[in-house]
Amino acid sequence: MNTPSDYQIFEAGDVLLQSGQRHPRLQLAYKTYGTLNAAKDNVILYPTSFAAQHYDTEWLIAPGAALDPERYFIVIPNLFGNGLSSSPSNSMETLADAPYPNISYHDAIPIQHRLLTEQFGITRLALVYGWSMGGMQAYHWAARYPDMVARAAVVCGSARCSPFNAVFLESVRAALTTDPAFVDGRFVSKPSAGLRAMGRVYAGWAMSHGFYRDELWREAGFTSLEDYLTRSWDVAFAHRDANNLLAQLWTWQNGDISRCDAFRGDFRKAMAAIKARVLLMPGQTDNYFQVGDNEDELPLLTSARAAELCPIPSLHGHRAGNPVKIPADTAFINTKVSTLLAADA
Amino acid sequence: MNTPSDYQIFEAGDVLLQSGQRHPRLQLAYKTYGTLNAAKDNVILYPTSFAAQHYDTEWLIAPGAALDPERYFIVIPNLFGNGLSSSPSNSMETLADAPYPNISYHDAIPIQHRLLTEQFGITRLALVYGWSMGGMQAYHWAARYPDMVARAAVVCGSARCSPFNAVFLESVRAALTTDPAFVDGRFVSKPSAGLRAMGRVYAGWAMSHGFYRDELWREAGFTSLEDYLTRSWDVAFAHRDANNLLAQLWTWQNGDISRCDAFRGDFRKAMAAIKARVLLMPGQTDNYFQVGDNEDELPLLTSARAAELCPIPSLHGHRAGNPVKIPADTAFINTKVSTLLAADA
Repeated sequence: MNTPSDYQIFEAGDVLLQSGQRHPRLQLAYKTYGTLNAAKDNVILYPTSFAAQHYDTEWLIAPGAALDPERYFIVIPNLFGNGLSSSPSNSMETLADAPYPNISYHDAIPIQHRLLTEQFGITRLALVYGWSMGGMQAYHWAARYPDMVARAAVVCGSARCSPFNAVFLESVRAALTTDPAFVDGRFVSKPSAGLRAMGRVYAGWAMSHGFYRDELWREAGFTSLEDYLTRSWDVAFAHRDANNLLAQLWTWQNGDISRCDAFRGDFRKAMAAIKARVLLMPGQTDNYFQVGDNEDELPLLTSARAAELCPIPSLHGHRAGNPVKIPADTAFINTKVSTLLAADA
Repeated sequence: MNTPSDYQIFEAGDVLLQSGQRHPRLQLAYKTYGTLNAAKDNVILYPTSFAAQHYDTEWLIAPGAALDPERYFIVIPNLFGNGLSSSPSNSMETLADAPYPNISYHDAIPIQHRLLTEQFGITRLALVYGWSMGGMQAYHWAARYPDMVARAAVVCGSARCSPFNAVFLESVRAALTTDPAFVDGRFVSKPSAGLRAMGRVYAGWAMSHGFYRDELWREAGFTSLEDYLTRSWDVAFAHRDANNLLAQLWTWQNGDISRCDAFRGDFRKAMAAIKARVLLMPGQTDNYFQVGDNEDELPLLTSARAAELCPIPSLHGHRAGNPVKIPADTAFINTKVSTLLAADA
């Protein structure tokens, strides 16, 4: 599937970023599934998560599932920094070797908005659905374009990166950048040891105490804890570009729906701007996007048509929201999202 | 205080270790506080925690506090690998440059036992008290010498290293050993970058979500999250010998009261061997020695004179059990341990 013809590029051109920096040729890679109907009211936007490309997340799109391409026109915009959209790995020439600029969610969402409006004439989203960084993008969409977003499903995400979450990301960055391939702020070659260490750091944060206690890695065919860590986490980021990972870590760590001209850091105001029907679906045992973050957010959704907190009852930690080959969690998500899509909005 | 005269050395001689390896001259560094009474019934054993020396933990010993040197004879045995007792950093000559052997709690506790019996003629402990790895040692003492231990206070510790805890330690090891100073299984020079990365990894695990949310680092005088991470965690392990840290990580990760000839891996049998009055005092928000571990242990203490689970109500995560300059947590611990010491045993 990984061929140029698998996805399209939206040329956003020369873009002034929130930081004051410019990207002279920002490109948004996207893929669509299903057919846009005449009323253009069957659109689901499904942004990508950390280090992921649409190849990694499109499995959730399936006939009969909540994200059903036979019923909906589903668009996956690849997040900047993921190696398909503009990223350090593909911008060197364009940037004439200048440092890659920091790109915030507030930079990314308007480009996604331009794709939908300019390319497809879409003015309303039936749903914006996202997991992890995708969930943060869903939140940003709902706050930034409240009249356009009918429903938002935030799966293992939050409206801003909590300080605890940021400290987790600091540990990921520290493990990765300890590799000697990190020189003067960027990787000059592939940091194999750093990527492996980053995976080991991720292993404890991404999965729960109970996951390891009950040896749930056996469900996926691993034969020992070390086998699981070695074959799953040591290689989890091995095929990613390390400079891309750093770019997305910045985006994640600095995520906050209120850090824009419209809200000027007033978090309550940003939350109150959201009009969508909101489903907050954290993993019950997620260590970094904790249930408590969503609990604190829920009462701030004062203008939302409806807002529900519905933790995924799973020991799979953060991965409960991207339950590849975990039927129970997948079924839970599909049921809740189907209900959300069936509700008035 | 850090002078040779501050502590004593117990020469354990040539010791056959549980692994089958030998240490030809195992030395136990210890320090005593207070006076052993004639009946020799006022003894508190206070083993050390990860990377710590008695300098780091003796602050809890104070007149009027639970560990009161005016009333008790308190012995701190420095855990092997901490740089004062036998450790990679001081065993190179003795070992003729051979790899440092793995030393388990089951190796360490009998040497501590020899110190108490051979050096002081002590046959009964009023209390064994320990935090973190010290708490694990307290547990091992209670299971190994049930008739000698009247009371055991396990603070942020467990009877065995949970798999989740082990995965955390894997992340610490990965961050540390990514440093290029790690060559063929040992550090050949000081891994400054690795030690810093290890500190950043520790930062998220040691403290809680609520600690960061409420910016409790302000209580200690830090002015920003980055200031806290930089001045506290980036340097937390900077003055430690990295090979020593690896040695103690092995001890911690392989901790299990049942992994010895007496119990042959039968965890329930080992737990049932404990006769002491047991106080399990996890931190309510500890991420790696979780409350749930102690909850699971409590019903297994079937022979204990008494067993109580009493979480420290604190946002200071694992540090709730070593609450340097945190008056509320210190008071909580002192009160509970004083009550334990006052109870029949």
